[in-house]
Amino acid sequence: MIVESNIVRFDCIALDSGATLAPVEVAYESYGELNARKTNAILVLHAFSGDAHAAGISHETGKPGWWDNMIGPGKAFDTNKYFVLCSNVLGGCRGTTGPSSINPVTGCPYAMSFPVITISDMVRLQKMLIDALGIRKLLTVTGGSMGGMQALEWAVAYPDRVVSAIPIATTTRHSAQQIAFNEVGRQAVMADPDWNEGNYYSKKPPARGLAVARMVGHITYMSDDSMREKFGRRLRGKENFGFDFDVDFEVESYLRYRGSEFVHRFDANSYLYITKAMDYFDLVNGQGTLAAAFEAAQARFLVISFSSDWLYPSYQSQEIVRALRARNRDVAYVELQSNYGHDAFLVDVAEQTDLIRGFLASTYEKVQ
Amino acid sequence: MIVESNIVRFDCIALDSGATLAPVEVAYESYGELNARKTNAILVLHAFSGDAHAAGISHETGKPGWWDNMIGPGKAFDTNKYFVLCSNVLGGCRGTTGPSSINPVTGCPYAMSFPVITISDMVRLQKMLIDALGIRKLLTVTGGSMGGMQALEWAVAYPDRVVSAIPIATTTRHSAQQIAFNEVGRQAVMADPDWNEGNYYSKKPPARGLAVARMVGHITYMSDDSMREKFGRRLRGKENFGFDFDVDFEVESYLRYRGSEFVHRFDANSYLYITKAMDYFDLVNGQGTLAAAFEAAQARFLVISFSSDWLYPSYQSQEIVRALRARNRDVAYVELQSNYGHDAFLVDVAEQTDLIRGFLASTYEKVQ
Repeated sequence: MIVESNIVRFDCIALDSGATLAPVEVAYESYGELNARKTNAILVLHAFSGDAHAAGISHETGKPGWWDNMIGPGKAFDTNKYFVLCSNVLGGCRGTTGPSSINPVTGCPYAMSFPVITISDMVRLQKMLIDALGIRKLLTVTGGSMGGMQALEWAVAYPDRVVSAIPIATTTRHSAQQIAFNEVGRQAVMADPDWNEGNYYSKKPPARGLAVARMVGHITYMSDDSMREKFGRRLRGKENFGFDFDVDFEVESYLRYRGSEFVHRFDANSYLYITKAMDYFDLVNGQGTLAAAFEAAQARFLVISFSSDWLYPSYQSQEIVRALRARNRDVAYVELQSNYGHDAFLVDVAEQTDLIRGFLASTYEKVQ
Repeated sequence: MIVESNIVRFDCIALDSGATLAPVEVAYESYGELNARKTNAILVLHAFSGDAHAAGISHETGKPGWWDNMIGPGKAFDTNKYFVLCSNVLGGCRGTTGPSSINPVTGCPYAMSFPVITISDMVRLQKMLIDALGIRKLLTVTGGSMGGMQALEWAVAYPDRVVSAIPIATTTRHSAQQIAFNEVGRQAVMADPDWNEGNYYSKKPPARGLAVARMVGHITYMSDDSMREKFGRRLRGKENFGFDFDVDFEVESYLRYRGSEFVHRFDANSYLYITKAMDYFDLVNGQGTLAAAFEAAQARFLVISFSSDWLYPSYQSQEIVRALRARNRDVAYVELQSNYGHDAFLVDVAEQTDLIRGFLASTYEKVQ
């Protein structure tokens, strides 16, 4: 399945910060067919470094989508049955307006003059897209990690537009530790002189800083166990320690590779803006309690977490479940056993598939 | 108690890498009095960023030692009873020969021409110091984190020289995750152009890279819980988000402060060498199993870990205990309940004090 992304342009969007972006473009892909009654649309929301290319083979890059194991004919999000949409988030660097986009006023990239955006801003833009596509109600909104935050925001901000929500490996607000990891990443980017206060678009990007930030990320995405299984203390291409500062261990080689590879596909300023949006996200948002924040929600929920995920630990998903139950909302919760840490929602999908397939089928029945 | 450090110089030391350092100096402090029979000497071994100044108030800096809450009259390591020694590790930057020391052959700092050193090299130099002080047997060797690695190495490499060992919050070898965190720190340092392949001693040090490395470290030293208690999502000096990239959250301010402060007291090249020594450390070291490696050990052991320490998790201490028991060695193990994460051995010392006081008293009785 070769897929292409589409771009929709809107005149402007008002942001939580008080700023306005004009115009704003959103890149999206879709898989499957929208039915005549438009009741089978699923909005998939990507995580921090994802993009609109969730499934199929990209016409542009030849690469499979980031959730290709979950979206397609016969898969969890069965494209024989459902119409699946995924858009790049506001502030991103893969087609949707972000800091690397040209500011029409100046003719130059926004860079750090791009307004600080929030998860709620991202969702507002998604809602504009859904409106433009003439979809009244989404069968489900779903995603892992930052994608889960957006799913939660959808359910609370546009309760009459979502039939169900499947937030996975996520939280209603970052803990101090989660903010801290993001802050380290931002500091690594900004410490690189090539970052140059964000003005690097016609020059060398801050590749070293961004690579270091990404390496920290990768450690947090895996579990202690999965790193032991994958790398242990195995040496890379040598029998003995090198007694120098070249690569000794396979895990060092892996991190260096993943760090340097990331630089080619991600914009450093987007790194700053999107991590900031995650840190700002707080579903409570003046409502006093999380339960009060969920007062507005009408959707059915399926909440999923993974046993070895220490970046978005299960207790954060359980907070969601408790708050929804406190308002007597329809919520199912499963903690899946997996060694893969936070990455599990991307790679350890067998049980996740069964869960979601069943939940979607029963949800779909209700709207027929 | 005002304390001063002493320096002892040796002609040379042979290293695990095959290289030789000549001459080599070691900085140490001592607290309490060595008894006539020299049976009350305790060697305290510092963690990664520690130094010889373990207790009392430094004559030089006016600051208390890093384990001042554990060492002193009436404390866990009671200086009314014991003679306590602590030396800066080989490769360090606080008096002992390291990459910032002058290479007598060139008249310039070693920088990256300093040989790669190991935990066993560090311990070999400590043994030379103990020999020079005329101490035949150490009542105990003890330390947390990298200090615990040295304590274990002492017990195995010089079994007839240690009566007991108290390894705390440590491991016999780094896991892939522990190596990964160290590697990220090294990459952050080396990514800073001011690092300049290690040649920065007459110029600007790689302050930004070293600060980022330290920030990552601080996250791993705390627990999710202790960060929540200490910072939560509290904002720093503002009522609302700034919608910019200045400090918003207190945890960001804390990390930036700890990062920039570290730069003034630690050498970036020492950061590289010492983290590498930790990653290379493997007590098994060709002995096949950990139990076989402990075959040589004769000491009594008290092994301590902390419930919320996820950097050196309890399972690593339990591996030590299992291997010692498999050789029928005398070992006591306690997992202390603490929210402070890896930092607990430095800050949450009430129970640790009771444990160590009792263990030391019974050990001391045996040698009288």
